[in-house]
Amino acid sequence: MSSTNGQVIRCKAAVAWEAGKPMVIEEVEVAPPQKMEVRIKILFTSLCHTDVYFWEAKGQNPVFPRILGHEAGGVVESVGEGVTDLQPGDHVLPVFTGECKECAHCKSEESNMCDLLRINTDRGVMLHDQKSRFSINGKPVFHFVGTSTFSEYTVVHVGCLAKINPLAPLDKVCVLSCGISTGLGATLNVAKPKKGSSVAVFGLGAVGLAAAEGARIAGASRIIGVDLNANRFELAKKFGVTEFVNPKDYKKPVQEVIAELTNGGVDRSVECTGHIDAMISAFECVHDGWGVAVLVGVPHKEAVFKTSPLNVLNERTLKGTFFGNYKPRSDIPSVVEKYMNKELELEKFITHEVSFSEINKAFDLMLKGEGLRCIIRMDA
Amino acid sequence: MSSTNGQVIRCKAAVAWEAGKPMVIEEVEVAPPQKMEVRIKILFTSLCHTDVYFWEAKGQNPVFPRILGHEAGGVVESVGEGVTDLQPGDHVLPVFTGECKECAHCKSEESNMCDLLRINTDRGVMLHDQKSRFSINGKPVFHFVGTSTFSEYTVVHVGCLAKINPLAPLDKVCVLSCGISTGLGATLNVAKPKKGSSVAVFGLGAVGLAAAEGARIAGASRIIGVDLNANRFELAKKFGVTEFVNPKDYKKPVQEVIAELTNGGVDRSVECTGHIDAMISAFECVHDGWGVAVLVGVPHKEAVFKTSPLNVLNERTLKGTFFGNYKPRSDIPSVVEKYMNKELELEKFITHEVSFSEINKAFDLMLKGEGLRCIIRMDA
Repeated sequence: MSSTNGQVIRCKAAVAWEAGKPMVIEEVEVAPPQKMEVRIKILFTSLCHTDVYFWEAKGQNPVFPRILGHEAGGVVESVGEGVTDLQPGDHVLPVFTGECKECAHCKSEESNMCDLLRINTDRGVMLHDQKSRFSINGKPVFHFVGTSTFSEYTVVHVGCLAKINPLAPLDKVCVLSCGISTGLGATLNVAKPKKGSSVAVFGLGAVGLAAAEGARIAGASRIIGVDLNANRFELAKKFGVTEFVNPKDYKKPVQEVIAELTNGGVDRSVECTGHIDAMISAFECVHDGWGVAVLVGVPHKEAVFKTSPLNVLNERTLKGTFFGNYKPRSDIPSVVEKYMNKELELEKFITHEVSFSEINKAFDLMLKGEGLRCIIRMDA
Repeated sequence: MSSTNGQVIRCKAAVAWEAGKPMVIEEVEVAPPQKMEVRIKILFTSLCHTDVYFWEAKGQNPVFPRILGHEAGGVVESVGEGVTDLQPGDHVLPVFTGECKECAHCKSEESNMCDLLRINTDRGVMLHDQKSRFSINGKPVFHFVGTSTFSEYTVVHVGCLAKINPLAPLDKVCVLSCGISTGLGATLNVAKPKKGSSVAVFGLGAVGLAAAEGARIAGASRIIGVDLNANRFELAKKFGVTEFVNPKDYKKPVQEVIAELTNGGVDRSVECTGHIDAMISAFECVHDGWGVAVLVGVPHKEAVFKTSPLNVLNERTLKGTFFGNYKPRSDIPSVVEKYMNKELELEKFITHEVSFSEINKAFDLMLKGEGLRCIIRMDA
């Protein structure tokens, strides 16, 4: 039992006081975990586009002051009532969506969209009592997607924590909390390319490159990267991408370009940009008879997906995925093992590292589109 | 070896001389089968909407004079050069789409859309020499989808013939040539509902009821029939349909009605009308996380399928199917066995029977929307 068990912990956290303004490292109070909650010490966190998106809060419901952050690795400090799966010292990855193990989704082999703990970006409090566990001088600071990992300590629902191999280096596997698993799972769990097949990946950011990494692991022989930014092509080669198509280089729709390159279409495609035109192209570029397109990127709310129903009737499949169809508690530990077995390469996703005090630099890098993942060391 | 082997056969055929005009029973000459072709004696044929569609030829390329017909059962009379799979006396079902066993589609486990023998409704001749095997006084009469079963004898590519159990009654299993297999396979091969699941079927004609029969065979516990014609509901009960929704009875979209009835959506849906609104409803009525919608019905060429991409991203799957994903030669014999094993009930699809001389009556029944399948006896 740690000496802090049951006590309020005072520690440092990066607080986003208002939309788009640099975060400030503040001393915060972190309350003990309540029923079905776990308090964890974050050792490493990384920055994902979604943090930036809700920090900018353009067109979003603004929830401030807030502690952002949802890709991280940490160690359990203490557990609340009813938590039996975890104990102090366990190594965990917090995940922005959960697994209650009791709802219809958790009981379904096909879904990971838990009814109880599905991502909720508007909620800034814990489910148990609709209160925040963070405060500054007694005034609440809001949570973010149930994780708030830009804090030395945070409180998370037990259903949003994957217990992982304690030998796994948290400064590497922390990136599996969100984006990398999302892309990887989209390919391995949903698109499921066969050995020797062709896969098109739309968008060569971290998620798209993780989708390419999944295709590489699955043994795809052709991995066609599609991006409007030609600068990404060189980096993408490290992730198994064999060919590049920049839609700007052609007058015809990119789906026609891909169909010509592949004798009628690719076997699988994975869309990671969230742009509606790319979604439609990703669907229409798969081969009739057996092609499967998987949508990953999140579009604007008003976007409309349009295609001729004949494209569907010719035996194409359109699927969507959320967090790569991984169930956080059941499946993420095995993704960590893929890294430990050297099947999955994570180092190449990690392009930058900063100390916690420099967290705003990580935001700057992402806003400039530099690199893939920036690891934030909490102890520095 | 039959006495007619290698000879022209003179026999009766129903010739459609022009669009929408009653067919005329004529004496026609049927040439011997050429390379990879088989001449068969048709014993029973049935009428499908597609025959009526191309007979009316509204907005279609008119190909006349033509011998229609594509659902049938027959016996091999003689075979052409290179045919090794079939011999005189074999019982066969001709199929409007084929299986060459050599193209990428035939070699794929996932596709049945043979490159060589895929349906071609404009072609009125045989592939081998681009000529018709039918003539009247030396003038050619065109084929229809490679089958032309409204004739006592017809010539079919070997790749479009399923060799079936000779004990199977051809007056029953002939309906497996097209519509019934299409609906059945859409459910069993593509939607794949689990035992105890819920399935919505849009359109309660023969294809939709075959989809419902597939759901019944798969052990679905709720089969929701959706149709604008309430008269179809009573008949549909025989096919395992447990509930009925008539979109006319509600002000809200039928997908919302179904979601309310099923705590968020059905597990699977199968769309058999070809109306674009029904296609969209069929997709949007499946449950997030695991729902699969299968499109079967063929729409107008200009139709556009539109939905919010969020419906896809919430882990719904949209698939299309052609002939129920059955490969004609490899798979249809086993569907006949399902009937022989009493797993599949075909009698309930057969609502009428006429003699060949009364074939125009079968067209009248279908135009009036009466019944499901009308068997045409060639010997009467």
